Amino acid sequence: MSDRQKIAVIGAGAFGTALATVMALDGRSDVTLIGRDLALMADLRDDRIHDAALPGVPLPDNLQFSAEPDALEQADLVLFAMPAQAHDAAAHYYGPYLRNDVVVVTCAKGIERSSGRMLTDVLRASLPNNTVAVLSGPGFAADIARGLPTAMSIAAEDLGAAEHLAQTISSPTFRLYASSDRIGVQLGGALKNVLAIACGVVEGAGLGDSARAALIARGLAEMSRLVVALGGSADTVRGLSGLGDLVLTATSHQSRNLRFGIALGEGVPADAAAGGLVEGAHTASVAVRLARKNGIEMPVAEAVAAIIDGRLGVRAAMEALMTRPITTE
Amino acid sequence: MSDRQKIAVIGAGAFGTALATVMALDGRSDVTLIGRDLALMADLRDDRIHDAALPGVPLPDNLQFSAEPDALEQADLVLFAMPAQAHDAAAHYYGPYLRNDVVVVTCAKGIERSSGRMLTDVLRASLPNNTVAVLSGPGFAADIARGLPTAMSIAAEDLGAAEHLAQTISSPTFRLYASSDRIGVQLGGALKNVLAIACGVVEGAGLGDSARAALIARGLAEMSRLVVALGGSADTVRGLSGLGDLVLTATSHQSRNLRFGIALGEGVPADAAAGGLVEGAHTASVAVRLARKNGIEMPVAEAVAAIIDGRLGVRAAMEALMTRPITTE
Repeated sequence: MSDRQKIAVIGAGAFGTALATVMALDGRSDVTLIGRDLALMADLRDDRIHDAALPGVPLPDNLQFSAEPDALEQADLVLFAMPAQAHDAAAHYYGPYLRNDVVVVTCAKGIERSSGRMLTDVLRASLPNNTVAVLSGPGFAADIARGLPTAMSIAAEDLGAAEHLAQTISSPTFRLYASSDRIGVQLGGALKNVLAIACGVVEGAGLGDSARAALIARGLAEMSRLVVALGGSADTVRGLSGLGDLVLTATSHQSRNLRFGIALGEGVPADAAAGGLVEGAHTASVAVRLARKNGIEMPVAEAVAAIIDGRLGVRAAMEALMTRPITTE
Repeated sequence: MSDRQKIAVIGAGAFGTALATVMALDGRSDVTLIGRDLALMADLRDDRIHDAALPGVPLPDNLQFSAEPDALEQADLVLFAMPAQAHDAAAHYYGPYLRNDVVVVTCAKGIERSSGRMLTDVLRASLPNNTVAVLSGPGFAADIARGLPTAMSIAAEDLGAAEHLAQTISSPTFRLYASSDRIGVQLGGALKNVLAIACGVVEGAGLGDSARAALIARGLAEMSRLVVALGGSADTVRGLSGLGDLVLTATSHQSRNLRFGIALGEGVPADAAAGGLVEGAHTASVAVRLARKNGIEMPVAEAVAAIIDGRLGVRAAMEALMTRPITTE
C-alpha cells in the first residue's frame, strides 16, 4: 500500500468534489477533499452527498473529507479547485502545509482580476519550490462525477511531468491529455467564459443560432491572438482546452456564464443577472486590459466588458460586433 | 437600371429559397428562383410563401420564380442550391443555358458520393469555361430568410473575385467573407455534417455535453488533416466555414444531421432514422475512402460510417472513440 499516491483536492465546490469523486472511484489513490467549512465537511463525511453542488450524485465511501489544513502534510499531489479570485488567499493559507516536492495543480478557469496574473503565476508566487500544473478543458462537474465520458487537458512546463500527472489522475471515464503549454491551456479555459457570455447575449437577444456560431468562430480567433501574445500556442486554443471547452460552455445551459449572458441579452442589468460567481465577468475586464497592453484587438471581449459595465446597450454592442466591415477572414 | 445584376438561384429548397429571399430583400439585384417543379414554382409566385421549406417566412414581392431553364440566359451570376448528389445532373441540365462569363457558385455541403469529387470539380467538368465559386458556412435557411444576422464564407480561386462576389451577395444582415481557399471552404461544410452525426449519436446515447465537446475538438483536428491533405488550409477549417458551421450544426436541433445522429444514438436503424436527405450520411463514407487513399486517420468518420452501415453498434463505436489511448494532444 505504500506506493499508493495521496491526493488532496482543495475546494469543496462542484468541480473540486467531482474531481475528488472520480479519482476516489478509480481507486488507485487515496483521495481527500479539503474545504474550510467545518460543518459542510462533516455533513459530506456523514451523508456522502453534496446536495448544493452535485445533487443526486453519491460520493464514494473511500473519499475522505477534512476541514484541517494539516491534512495536506501527507499529500503527494494537491489540486487547487477554488474560484480563480480565491487562489492567492488559498495559496497563502495552505502553502505552509505543503512539502516542496508536491505538485500543485490549478483547476480554476480565470485570471486574477486585481493583478492580471495567470493562476500558475499566482500559485508560483506563494509556492516557489513546487511544480505548478494546470488542469482545464471541457468537463462539467456533474458529467465527471457521474462517470460520463470526459476528456480534459493537463499541462506542466515539462511534458513528461504532464504525462505522469495524466496517468495518475485519469480514470476509464475521465481522460486527461498531456500538454507542455500551461499558458494556452489555462487561458483557453479563462477566455472561453467571456465568449460564452457573448453567446448568451446573442441568445437572450433572440439573434439566432447562426449568429452565435459566427460569434464563436470569430471569438476563437480573438482568443488565439491573446494566447499567442502571452507566450502560448494557437494549437492549444484549437484543442480540448480552448475550442472544446468553448463549445461546451457556449452551447450548454449547464453553464453559468452562458446563463448570465442570456439574462444580459434579455435586458437584465449585470448586477441582477449574476446570481453567484460568474468567472467570465471578471475575466472580460482583465482580458481587455491585457489585450490593450499587448496591442491586440479583442472586439468580443470589449463588447462583453462594456455591456457588463453598463457602458453600452446590448443591441448597440451586438450590432457593432455583427456588422464589422467585410474583409477577408 | 441596366447596371443591376441579374442573379439566378437554382434549387427551391429551404436554402435556395432563403438565399434568393435575402438577396431580393436587399434589393440591389434582380433575383430569380428556379426550380424544376412547375406546380411549386407557380404556387410560390402566387402565394409568396414556401410552407414546406420556410414556413411563416413571407417571400418578397420583387422575387421572381421560374421553372424554365431558359430564365438562366439573362443571369450574370448563378447559385447552385440543390443537394450535393444532384449537382452533376443539374450542371448537365442547366449548363447549356449559361453564358461563359457567368460565375457559378455551389451552395451545397457535400462531396459527390459516386466519384469522391468535390462539388467545384463536379461543376467545372460540365462548365469548363465558367468561374466556379463556393458559398458555405454557418447559416440556417430560416435565420437567413428571416433577416437574423448571419455570416458565411465565399471562396473563389482568385481572392479578388471572391471579394467581388461577397460585395454582390451580402446584405446588412447576411455578411459574406471572402476566401481564396475553395477546398477548405467546401470541405469544411461537407465534413462537419459527419461530425454533427457523431455529436447526435453521443447525445442520443446519453453520454453528456462534456463528451460531445471533446468529440468536437478531436473531430475538428481530423477535418483539418483531410483538408490539408487535399490541398486546403487548416486556417480555413478553424474559421467560419469549418469551426463556425460545425458548432452550428452540432449544437442546434434545427440540423437534420444532428437529429439523424440522435436517432442512431437512441438505437434507431439508419434507414429508419433518415427521414429525408442527410448529407452527412453520404459524406461519411466518401470521407473514409478519401482518408484511406491519403493515408490519414479519421476515427470519427470511420465510426459514423460503421454505425450507418450497421457494421458497429453505437456503444461499441463510441467506446472505441472515447477511450483511445492517452497521448499528448
